[in-house]
Amino acid sequence: MATLASEVAEPRVEMNELAPYAGGHELAAARGEGDRIRLTWEDGLRGDFHALWLRDHCACPQCRHPQTRERIVRLLDLPEPLPAPDVEVTGDGALLVSWPATGEHPAHESRFDPGWLRQRADATTPAVRIPAAEPWEAADAARRPVLDFGAVVNTDDGLRQWLTALQRDGFVLLGGGPEAPEGIDDVVRRIGWPRETNFGRYFDVISKPNPNNAAYTAIGLEPHIDLPNWQRPPDFQLLYCIRNGAEGGASTLVDGFAVAEALRADDPEAFEVLAATPIDFRFQDEESDIAHRGPVIETDAQGAVTRIRFNNWIRDTLRLPTDAVAPFYRAYRRFWERLRDPRFVLRFSLQPGQLMAFDNLRVLHGREAFDPNSGPRHLRGTYLDRDLVQSRLRVLERNGA
Amino acid sequence: MATLASEVAEPRVEMNELAPYAGGHELAAARGEGDRIRLTWEDGLRGDFHALWLRDHCACPQCRHPQTRERIVRLLDLPEPLPAPDVEVTGDGALLVSWPATGEHPAHESRFDPGWLRQRADATTPAVRIPAAEPWEAADAARRPVLDFGAVVNTDDGLRQWLTALQRDGFVLLGGGPEAPEGIDDVVRRIGWPRETNFGRYFDVISKPNPNNAAYTAIGLEPHIDLPNWQRPPDFQLLYCIRNGAEGGASTLVDGFAVAEALRADDPEAFEVLAATPIDFRFQDEESDIAHRGPVIETDAQGAVTRIRFNNWIRDTLRLPTDAVAPFYRAYRRFWERLRDPRFVLRFSLQPGQLMAFDNLRVLHGREAFDPNSGPRHLRGTYLDRDLVQSRLRVLERNGA
Repeated sequence: MATLASEVAEPRVEMNELAPYAGGHELAAARGEGDRIRLTWEDGLRGDFHALWLRDHCACPQCRHPQTRERIVRLLDLPEPLPAPDVEVTGDGALLVSWPATGEHPAHESRFDPGWLRQRADATTPAVRIPAAEPWEAADAARRPVLDFGAVVNTDDGLRQWLTALQRDGFVLLGGGPEAPEGIDDVVRRIGWPRETNFGRYFDVISKPNPNNAAYTAIGLEPHIDLPNWQRPPDFQLLYCIRNGAEGGASTLVDGFAVAEALRADDPEAFEVLAATPIDFRFQDEESDIAHRGPVIETDAQGAVTRIRFNNWIRDTLRLPTDAVAPFYRAYRRFWERLRDPRFVLRFSLQPGQLMAFDNLRVLHGREAFDPNSGPRHLRGTYLDRDLVQSRLRVLERNGA
Repeated sequence: MATLASEVAEPRVEMNELAPYAGGHELAAARGEGDRIRLTWEDGLRGDFHALWLRDHCACPQCRHPQTRERIVRLLDLPEPLPAPDVEVTGDGALLVSWPATGEHPAHESRFDPGWLRQRADATTPAVRIPAAEPWEAADAARRPVLDFGAVVNTDDGLRQWLTALQRDGFVLLGGGPEAPEGIDDVVRRIGWPRETNFGRYFDVISKPNPNNAAYTAIGLEPHIDLPNWQRPPDFQLLYCIRNGAEGGASTLVDGFAVAEALRADDPEAFEVLAATPIDFRFQDEESDIAHRGPVIETDAQGAVTRIRFNNWIRDTLRLPTDAVAPFYRAYRRFWERLRDPRFVLRFSLQPGQLMAFDNLRVLHGREAFDPNSGPRHLRGTYLDRDLVQSRLRVLERNGA
């Protein structure tokens, strides 16, 4: 019954998944015990599956749509309780489950690929592997390589490397792209499409005579995230440099997760205030009034930092009880001081043909002031959804990039 | 010092806000006390403002950008602690605050409109008023009027009525639009632009020969939300009916918030399981693999239901410890049974020229099976961001619609 060991075997039973199954192991035994089906693979690995789970995951054409791969079987159409099935291991090491007819419910047979089951034997294995965020300080970040624009645009491996680094570090520089606005499209098309906002699908960062936003002036910009006034700020931002002949205007990036953790270590009270105090952000122009109330540091139920909302210039009126005002400002200052600390701030001059991409909810970006009369400066920007970035990574992994 | 009472007075001091200030009352008195400035309006209303708050909210052209209306003054540039200012009420009832020079920090003067301050005297007043969700059952929903498509497209009052109802009820039907695909654009343009997804900016719901999604088949669709496999599913969905000559295919809507509350009342254990158990959702096709793990019922820190994620056909492998499987399926059935309960399900036949708009994270939509050979059926759909819907409502309110 043993097969040749291989990382990914050809599936025996079509489970209608695009992701490859875990490979190389047939089932050796299967037996029902109450509502559990206890499986043993030929290498001794064991796994318990609930009988109802198996019925819910049947991949036959009546239970899972052959084209859309979507679940058609409906729990509400199954008998409750489900009668105990017969189970057996087929000649080629797959699982065969036979459900008896009950009342008006017909009998049903389900077959499961042993590799597909093996992938699911441990419920703690995530369905989706995405690189975890690794916080950085300036010295670490300065050592990150500038990746090749052409490799990202033209090769799956280059694309995978870029997106992996972007997920892990929250920022990546690409270099060697064309000194033309279309460069940014070439990259966006590799992932999906731009996230459109009140600044359009793409926006040009050039100093403008009647700016509706600080980015369109020549002044320095403190570290910030974009669009904190949206319930759903953009996940990633791309800034593509087309021309940069102006004096000044260096770019800065700072890992808000690293800074938040430093604040938590040094001044837990300030951290707590920023995590527990929602404040208002607001952008108003003739056409819009986009507003959101949320904390500067967002944490999950376990206390891990998940999102930063820091942008001093579209902070709206601070609506707090008068007693809460001084503690908030104190905490806000302590966080902001660290956002400026050279220990954390990566500073560089973006060159024409370079693209900086960063996680807008983690890595704050800034800009030093520049002299708009000293030369042209033109960046083109856009935003991307995290859902699309991660989808592309999964498809690349699925296809073995 | 008293002025004529009026709802909205002309501002005396330009605070650089597009929203009108509270009207009609000048200040009668102002005095500093420690770090507080205590104000009294001429009708006796009192309000306390923290001195640092006032400094942070100075609206002079050095502190707030004249064009962008953004905050330029930076807390980190102010002395810490801030010296106590002199305060006085001006001849026309505004507040004048004078900050002395300190070390290298220059003196500064700030003027505040009394109506602007009055709007902010009570920190519990939200910056932004948006109608609260009002849960409904089928009988309530059936009494809701079909609003006029033309009024929404052509009048600000019609638009405001529609968006208010959409926020409150989570669904609205419009009638009387053109029987042509462009109808939906006319409505979207009144708010902003479509939220683009893997189904495009607009999608056509017609039965297709090689569907990649259940909506493109002719089968019945259980109540569901769209794109639960996105970290950020679309907030609102619009479905515009261009032709509907097929037999069957009635539309259904059910208020997931109402159903979740009914479940909490009848079967708190099932509610808890659905609120506490994240499960996986996943859409795979040749181009994408978009996946998210989240609970079926999402609640906030206070336990209020904030979001529903129910869609049986793109539920991915259920990754739970074997012991947690049966309790999950039990809870899931109990919720699903209620989603089908006629007490909750609004059922109607969408007519050509009608638009159904609904909150995709609250109101689940479904469709009965239809016979694709009995006549043409063509709906065009799109999604909208809540940020844009609420922005439009605020702009309409600001402009007095």
